[in-house]
Amino acid sequence: MWQVICDEAKNASAAEPALASFFYAAILNHPSMAHALAFNLAQRLQSASLPAGLIKDVCQQALYEDASLQAVIEIDCAAYYDRDPACDRYLMPLLYFKGYQAIQAQRVAHWLWQRDRTSLAFYIQNRIASVFDADLHPGARLGRGFMIDHATGVVIGETAVVGDNVSMLHGVTLGGSGLQSGDRHPKVGNGVLLGAGAKLLGNIRIGEGSKVGSGSVVLCDVPPHTTVAGVPAKVVGTPAVEQPALAMNQRWDALP
Amino acid sequence: MWQVICDEAKNASAAEPALASFFYAAILNHPSMAHALAFNLAQRLQSASLPAGLIKDVCQQALYEDASLQAVIEIDCAAYYDRDPACDRYLMPLLYFKGYQAIQAQRVAHWLWQRDRTSLAFYIQNRIASVFDADLHPGARLGRGFMIDHATGVVIGETAVVGDNVSMLHGVTLGGSGLQSGDRHPKVGNGVLLGAGAKLLGNIRIGEGSKVGSGSVVLCDVPPHTTVAGVPAKVVGTPAVEQPALAMNQRWDALP
Amino acid sequence: MWQVICDEAKNASAAEPALASFFYAAILNHPSMAHALAFNLAQRLQSASLPAGLIKDVCQQALYEDASLQAVIEIDCAAYYDRDPACDRYLMPLLYFKGYQAIQAQRVAHWLWQRDRTSLAFYIQNRIASVFDADLHPGARLGRGFMIDHATGVVIGETAVVGDNVSMLHGVTLGGSGLQSGDRHPKVGNGVLLGAGAKLLGNIRIGEGSKVGSGSVVLCDVPPHTTVAGVPAKVVGTPAVEQPALAMNQRWDALP
Amino acid sequence: MWQVICDEAKNASAAEPALASFFYAAILNHPSMAHALAFNLAQRLQSASLPAGLIKDVCQQALYEDASLQAVIEIDCAAYYDRDPACDRYLMPLLYFKGYQAIQAQRVAHWLWQRDRTSLAFYIQNRIASVFDADLHPGARLGRGFMIDHATGVVIGETAVVGDNVSMLHGVTLGGSGLQSGDRHPKVGNGVLLGAGAKLLGNIRIGEGSKVGSGSVVLCDVPPHTTVAGVPAKVVGTPAVEQPALAMNQRWDALP
Amino acid sequence: MWQVICDEAKNASAAEPALASFFYAAILNHPSMAHALAFNLAQRLQSASLPAGLIKDVCQQALYEDASLQAVIEIDCAAYYDRDPACDRYLMPLLYFKGYQAIQAQRVAHWLWQRDRTSLAFYIQNRIASVFDADLHPGARLGRGFMIDHATGVVIGETAVVGDNVSMLHGVTLGGSGLQSGDRHPKVGNGVLLGAGAKLLGNIRIGEGSKVGSGSVVLCDVPPHTTVAGVPAKVVGTPAVEQPALAMNQRWDALP
Amino acid sequence: MWQVICDEAKNASAAEPALASFFYAAILNHPSMAHALAFNLAQRLQSASLPAGLIKDVCQQALYEDASLQAVIEIDCAAYYDRDPACDRYLMPLLYFKGYQAIQAQRVAHWLWQRDRTSLAFYIQNRIASVFDADLHPGARLGRGFMIDHATGVVIGETAVVGDNVSMLHGVTLGGSGLQSGDRHPKVGNGVLLGAGAKLLGNIRIGEGSKVGSGSVVLCDVPPHTTVAGVPAKVVGTPAVEQPALAMNQRWDALP
Repeated sequence: MWQVICDEAKNASAAEPALASFFYAAILNHPSMAHALAFNLAQRLQSASLPAGLIKDVCQQALYEDASLQAVIEIDCAAYYDRDPACDRYLMPLLYFKGYQAIQAQRVAHWLWQRDRTSLAFYIQNRIASVFDADLHPGARLGRGFMIDHATGVVIGETAVVGDNVSMLHGVTLGGSGLQSGDRHPKVGNGVLLGAGAKLLGNIRIGEGSKVGSGSVVLCDVPPHTTVAGVPAKVVGTPAVEQPALAMNQRWDALP
Repeated sequence: MWQVICDEAKNASAAEPALASFFYAAILNHPSMAHALAFNLAQRLQSASLPAGLIKDVCQQALYEDASLQAVIEIDCAAYYDRDPACDRYLMPLLYFKGYQAIQAQRVAHWLWQRDRTSLAFYIQNRIASVFDADLHPGARLGRGFMIDHATGVVIGETAVVGDNVSMLHGVTLGGSGLQSGDRHPKVGNGVLLGAGAKLLGNIRIGEGSKVGSGSVVLCDVPPHTTVAGVPAKVVGTPAVEQPALAMNQRWDALP
Repeated sequence: MWQVICDEAKNASAAEPALASFFYAAILNHPSMAHALAFNLAQRLQSASLPAGLIKDVCQQALYEDASLQAVIEIDCAAYYDRDPACDRYLMPLLYFKGYQAIQAQRVAHWLWQRDRTSLAFYIQNRIASVFDADLHPGARLGRGFMIDHATGVVIGETAVVGDNVSMLHGVTLGGSGLQSGDRHPKVGNGVLLGAGAKLLGNIRIGEGSKVGSGSVVLCDVPPHTTVAGVPAKVVGTPAVEQPALAMNQRWDALP
Repeated sequence: MWQVICDEAKNASAAEPALASFFYAAILNHPSMAHALAFNLAQRLQSASLPAGLIKDVCQQALYEDASLQAVIEIDCAAYYDRDPACDRYLMPLLYFKGYQAIQAQRVAHWLWQRDRTSLAFYIQNRIASVFDADLHPGARLGRGFMIDHATGVVIGETAVVGDNVSMLHGVTLGGSGLQSGDRHPKVGNGVLLGAGAKLLGNIRIGEGSKVGSGSVVLCDVPPHTTVAGVPAKVVGTPAVEQPALAMNQRWDALP
Repeated sequence: MWQVICDEAKNASAAEPALASFFYAAILNHPSMAHALAFNLAQRLQSASLPAGLIKDVCQQALYEDASLQAVIEIDCAAYYDRDPACDRYLMPLLYFKGYQAIQAQRVAHWLWQRDRTSLAFYIQNRIASVFDADLHPGARLGRGFMIDHATGVVIGETAVVGDNVSMLHGVTLGGSGLQSGDRHPKVGNGVLLGAGAKLLGNIRIGEGSKVGSGSVVLCDVPPHTTVAGVPAKVVGTPAVEQPALAMNQRWDALP
Repeated sequence: MWQVICDEAKNASAAEPALASFFYAAILNHPSMAHALAFNLAQRLQSASLPAGLIKDVCQQALYEDASLQAVIEIDCAAYYDRDPACDRYLMPLLYFKGYQAIQAQRVAHWLWQRDRTSLAFYIQNRIASVFDADLHPGARLGRGFMIDHATGVVIGETAVVGDNVSMLHGVTLGGSGLQSGDRHPKVGNGVLLGAGAKLLGNIRIGEGSKVGSGSVVLCDVPPHTTVAGVPAKVVGTPAVEQPALAMNQRWDALP
């Protein structure tokens, strides 16, 4: 994939010289996707309080210590390419998509969280929320092949768990249900699609292959391979496909 | 209009010396609205990767090559002044309103899109999404007299079409319906009002003079001069006025 | 509280040396919460047009002239600590939470608004909307013990009034109902909880101790101690507690 | 010359992609040398108090109102190319040489000075002194074909006059002689070469075609075509060439 | 003096609106010269490693704890106004003159040095050397009424002592004489004038009212009221005035 | 040496919390001196046209490809520690001294120069001249144990050669002698000391162990172990020590 991205960058660079150094600095200068991602996250998350160099070091540390992450960042990138018709180049998630960048930044923050470096994890959470407009708690466990489209307004709570190959759109909330601490956020199964603005509240389970219609509010468990919609959400049908996340149809009246 | 804006800026400058240079640099230094807009967009969209000077040049090029744009940016500004009771000066959209700035930046990106400069168009889309929190695809075709109030969380997809004199509030989505590429986003008629958080999904048509209630999810065509609401949205009445966008009442139970 | 925050900062500083100067500059260098808040708001709101030093001066002026504000900023901070299970240190709202920072910046803008310094008030409103993604009009009157969780997408209109000990989540709108100027936004009673994405439209009253379910759209008055939900919202029950804002359960099917 | 510079930039851009956007933004994006110079000066002189856009506007105004300036900036550039063996491309003065940039910025400040805009003229003088380390008073009158090599430490006073085709090296001072105001600085004739660190003090005349040795202090008039050196400077010979400024030999013991 | 400076700023602000906010932020917003100076030093000395707010706090602390400093910063400012014919407003040293700003920043660093805060003192020394191009060791003891004109290239060593009412020009060095630590730098008497580029080396004494010609190198003591010049410097006469620093004539062949 | 520097940084960090993150980012975060130097050079040399990340990469590449450089940067650092009485910690050159930073940046530029990457080499030369106020041509060949004290105003030409264990002070020039290209700059032998402001002009040789007095102008060869001074410089004695550069006494009338 990295070779393809470099080729895309070369073509884009030739076509738009005003951005040539951007493509160079963001892509062509790097030996690998992980290296480039660390650079790009650092550029976005840096602030007067924490320089880009330090953030880049932390990102690289996370990506190189946890070898599985290097695979995940490519799988996530492919998820955008495969599922978003507006994404026709692999470099787009890496360079332009707030959702992809927010997810990878959360993976770094989660790596810190697992090592009890909570101050830096919270600091990065704040930067993610400020820069990408998505509030992703460093404690949340996110599966591979995860895609957040558009990203603005997304909230994912501390004890939320997101399975593999999940897609969600902007404004989705995996929220808690009040004061109690402990396990209090949704568990989302593999292949689930969560439509724009859907709110899932409390320690509920969304079965694998299910779909939550856009604008819905889910207050209780959803069985596998089920479509729910409404405020509050009720069962309205069965997804036309095995993994709605891959088909990205957040409507609930139609195929697929 | 430009003369009025300059007078407003002079008054504001005298009243608040801490902002005097801001008003000078943003307004009084410019010979025309188009010139000032290019400056202000460049200030907001600039980043370490693309300096303000280059963005300003592109904005000016678009505004001066496509003469109709110079009229449109004034018509849009008047739309805010006429429809938003909190907007009592013409300089407010130009200087302060994320929605107005995001729309005009999209118009520049669309101008690039039409000329196949997709890399720069996508780059600007990313900056719009990051800075104004509204993800406006450069392919979308936006009519004149367009107003996005508050703007945060708005998403407008690649093949969406927005008619003339349309108003929408924050959180509105003109989204797609899945994997297929091609024409897949809503077509919104003239004079339509889309309430806060309304989601319109798929290649559906919203007839002219219709209204979509706040928080609604629209999955099918809406006839002209019709009010729809709910999740999913159903017909709930008829707007009290010919063009709900001008009246800005996103409630669906009351006049007008 | 300030002493506790300083101790928290010292501990965090020792644990994460990359952030040591951040904790020093943001907290340990200041003699009081008000002083530190002014610094932190200025760091976030500054731009090329208005340097941090000027904003800090305005914040300090507001905080020191209006003595009640100094109490309020501590009460608000305690509200986050008490109501948000993910907030286990008092320094978190001050340093990391967009909602807390946005509220306090609005209090400064409101102080300017009351003194007819509308240009600067609008300027700060724009900065709040840009930086914290919450559009809080400087005219709105906000009670004490106010908490906005996550904050992205919140809109509070010019004539809105928020009582004491109110909690709201991201995406909540206290919006108007159209063209008429004058008193046109919601009045929210003490202890009310407004769930994520709830839209309240028009000059309606939400009685004290009531709860609005997540994703709901409220078009009419809500009696005290009542739970409403749906699009449009209807009465669905009675909150299990006196002040739902303190319990933070935005679900409407369960205790409390 | 502009076409040559653009070709140089294209070659350099191809050879060093990390700088491609730099060459684009600084050179290739501009229709003329004057336009490019205004951009480059603005990038260097900008500060938090005065944004690049405003400085660029002032530079363009000066360059376009005073048509002779457009010729002068090219003649000065050629002077570096012709006289400095380390300068083998025309783009080097424009992009890299503090002396060339400082001279042109002074020309803009002088244009302001002539129009009694002393505040902005002084502001730019301060920026020149800070950024290019050369303190060039906006009142000084500088001829065409002027070259300051290396530039650090140069001081040119308010009533100094520099003829055409003059060269000076770093550390040269055209200073006053005390408290009296009025005409109090040196007058330097055409073709003069002032060696590194030479100090000329008071309203003295340096005849055309003369040379002041490096490290010398000149306290009285120097006849034309004369070499002086020492502390204080005395006549030590005759320059081997008609215009020592073109030969750039700041030694006084040798040809030419 | 502060009232005069404020009046000057008001006039300049009215004449040049592009700088109105600069004058406001730098002068009109402050209650006193000390307050304004702290702001201006912080703006100049700030960097990514140390934000303006922290530097301003340190400057204010120094200026308010050591009451004599508040008088000194005005006396120094008056020195420029009285001695420099190009300085016709009191605001010029405060806003524009690198020498004045460098001296005052050294006074703050010296205040830190006296309190054994050597790390911060060295940090500020580095910033002074970088920003103002003058390397002023925090250990040096500087008298009142001190003026450094143009400033570039000035070096003042750790154990140097500068009396009252001293003037020096750019490039002056008060340097050491080698490896030995301890008292090793020049002691300059009251009223002394040191011409541009003069180098004084070693623990030598320059008697009060003496003058060192521009470009001279002084290796031994100079008696009071004596003019020396040359490389190395020799006695060449007697200054025409009691305090050459006030007359500012760095020539040694003429009155006064 | 790196371990000592880290210990120094820890002590300084504990003593001055405002700088704790600075010491962390600049020193403690790095595994080696080379790594830290690359970071610090990048922080200083970065600009809007070339981000810190790219410069750091180039510096690291140079330092790791040319293994001898890693030794040289430590030897140079020790030179400051050994020869400058005001330098009592090894971290001072690395963090605070413009001369040390300028030399190491030139070594990186020279590495580029040797590889025919002249555009980037010139770009860095310009940044060195702007930031450190010393114009060091990337073509110059600099020996090990090289120290430039204070640095402002130093100029070293393209074909200059500096031997091992050389010391020079601010304002020193190794300049050319006119138009001819080719080998035209001074060759400075091992152990030579060049006093403040000394100018050496043309392709002359300064024999090893010699000394050039401050403020002198050297126009011809200097034999080994000889002291020269004056304008122009003449032989005035013999240095008291074998390597005057180590003793740092730029006076020529005294021991050693």
